[in-house]
Amino acid sequence: MVSFTVFKGSKDGSIQRSTTYKPALTGNQVLVRVTASGVCGTDEHYRGQDMVLGHEGMGVVEEVGPGVQHSKKGDRVGWGYETNACGHCEFCLTGRETFCPERETYGASNFDQGSFAHQAVWSENFLFKIPDSIPDEEAAPLMCGGATVFNALRMYDIQPDSRVAIIGVGGLGHLAIQFASKMGCEVVVFSGSESKREEAKAFGASEFFATKGVKELDIGRKIDCLLVTTSFQPDWNFYLPLMNMDSVIIPLSVAAGNLEIPYMPLILQGIRIQGSLVASRGIHTRMLAFAAQHSIKPTVMKFPMNVDGITDALQTLNDGKMRYRAVLMPEKV
Amino acid sequence: MVSFTVFKGSKDGSIQRSTTYKPALTGNQVLVRVTASGVCGTDEHYRGQDMVLGHEGMGVVEEVGPGVQHSKKGDRVGWGYETNACGHCEFCLTGRETFCPERETYGASNFDQGSFAHQAVWSENFLFKIPDSIPDEEAAPLMCGGATVFNALRMYDIQPDSRVAIIGVGGLGHLAIQFASKMGCEVVVFSGSESKREEAKAFGASEFFATKGVKELDIGRKIDCLLVTTSFQPDWNFYLPLMNMDSVIIPLSVAAGNLEIPYMPLILQGIRIQGSLVASRGIHTRMLAFAAQHSIKPTVMKFPMNVDGITDALQTLNDGKMRYRAVLMPEKV
Repeated sequence: MVSFTVFKGSKDGSIQRSTTYKPALTGNQVLVRVTASGVCGTDEHYRGQDMVLGHEGMGVVEEVGPGVQHSKKGDRVGWGYETNACGHCEFCLTGRETFCPERETYGASNFDQGSFAHQAVWSENFLFKIPDSIPDEEAAPLMCGGATVFNALRMYDIQPDSRVAIIGVGGLGHLAIQFASKMGCEVVVFSGSESKREEAKAFGASEFFATKGVKELDIGRKIDCLLVTTSFQPDWNFYLPLMNMDSVIIPLSVAAGNLEIPYMPLILQGIRIQGSLVASRGIHTRMLAFAAQHSIKPTVMKFPMNVDGITDALQTLNDGKMRYRAVLMPEKV
Repeated sequence: MVSFTVFKGSKDGSIQRSTTYKPALTGNQVLVRVTASGVCGTDEHYRGQDMVLGHEGMGVVEEVGPGVQHSKKGDRVGWGYETNACGHCEFCLTGRETFCPERETYGASNFDQGSFAHQAVWSENFLFKIPDSIPDEEAAPLMCGGATVFNALRMYDIQPDSRVAIIGVGGLGHLAIQFASKMGCEVVVFSGSESKREEAKAFGASEFFATKGVKELDIGRKIDCLLVTTSFQPDWNFYLPLMNMDSVIIPLSVAAGNLEIPYMPLILQGIRIQGSLVASRGIHTRMLAFAAQHSIKPTVMKFPMNVDGITDALQTLNDGKMRYRAVLMPEKV
């Protein structure tokens, strides 16, 4: 029997320390000791659920099951939003296992473990080796935030000569700017206020526009690809006139309700709205290599991985004060 | 000076007979005698405008300008929604001239001529040679209706092994069923009532579902590509659960207002909403060859090309009684 400390949500939204018990490792299971965990908007979303939180996991392999083939004790590994899939459906067989009907994902399965924890047990098939040059606290936010923005750019054929616009400079946005810029794209950033202008430029933005109160804007050359990384949907009447013909909008926000967008411009401009999730493993692996090659670094705020630290991190996120991704670091035992 | 009879819309929506005067042909201009014209929902849309109606033109070359290189008197040619483009922008240079910022299209330019007319003058660059095996009255509806549905399937990488669903069996829908079926796709048709079931099957539908009053449906294998050919937007809550992961919705309706569609399913299912217009010339030419090869035939109702005939055709369309595309035939002179 394996047991470890975990941190869960609860009905009243308070963070609870708890323990997960697992039978001895079987098959391709791997026991990972957590060395860092990112904090994502989705964790806030699930804090009212009786489940272990966290899905930007980074750690070290402690023990391997009898069928494990590619992992060994001491390996530095990370995991993200998806932790298993069937392996034989049309999506798994074509490298799109994020769409597997039997996918196991955060918030939908494995409620007894997550990355807000001291340890976790996963199939080795969904663990990623982390390049040596990426430290734990920088690897963690790449496992979902980084994978999400890289997938949007990579899976949907954004080209190095594309003019890419990013709405929002936050956990996702500040990584999207870096990835798109290193891919060779011209990067236009839209943010509410001027406060993040200099940092956005340092991340790689070629242009920066503060949009609060602005009704109309001339940004010159039109946008080929618009990534929406804010937690709310933008004013489409403002953005559609800035879009190029035959261009793409990729909304990455997690939001309830309807997408409401003026209809005829979509037709007349031949615009595509592309729903995009996290990266399948092939793209995720490329993302890690690309981040290492180009020194793409999440800017993080560290919090201790305990009840107070987690509560604090979520509060900082809610207050809009995160610069730019929280990382929980285990306390020294 | 060239002059010819045309039929225009007017403020009160009545059809007016009129005359267009053009200077002698210059450059690559071609004078076409109209032998048939399709009638599209867009014509109804513009009947309140003081402009010549019609953009599914079929005819014979009568006279060519001094710079014409590829057309000669007697050629059977057709034209559609787009009649000119700049030829040197990024879209023209990549075979996507329907997105040219200087495109000339129906309802936006050349108000003094159209296909509800005895003749018309166009640049030879936007005239299409019509295969001998396609008679005039079947060619005309292909020039916009056929091009629109073929483009949706062809430009956006629908595969022969895709399960394609088509909402609506009308001017566009009855052609979409034929094209998709001949491309090898499994074709699922959704229609309000049962009345078109047999005809839809004859067009190539593998399955047919009447949707009026139906709240939920199990259609087995999910849909890879959904073409919306109705004049109104469908109930998305009904259709989204029928969509496959990583699938595409192509709305072809012309409609005012917003697209309103549940947001999170787009993300979680990785669905793409693809705005699609008519075909650029490369795809249009392929469409004509494919239609000839596979004997794809619009089912048409013929009306005389005069004020009463046009009024009649538009009324039949408005009454939902068209089976399936109106074609105006010039009266014998």
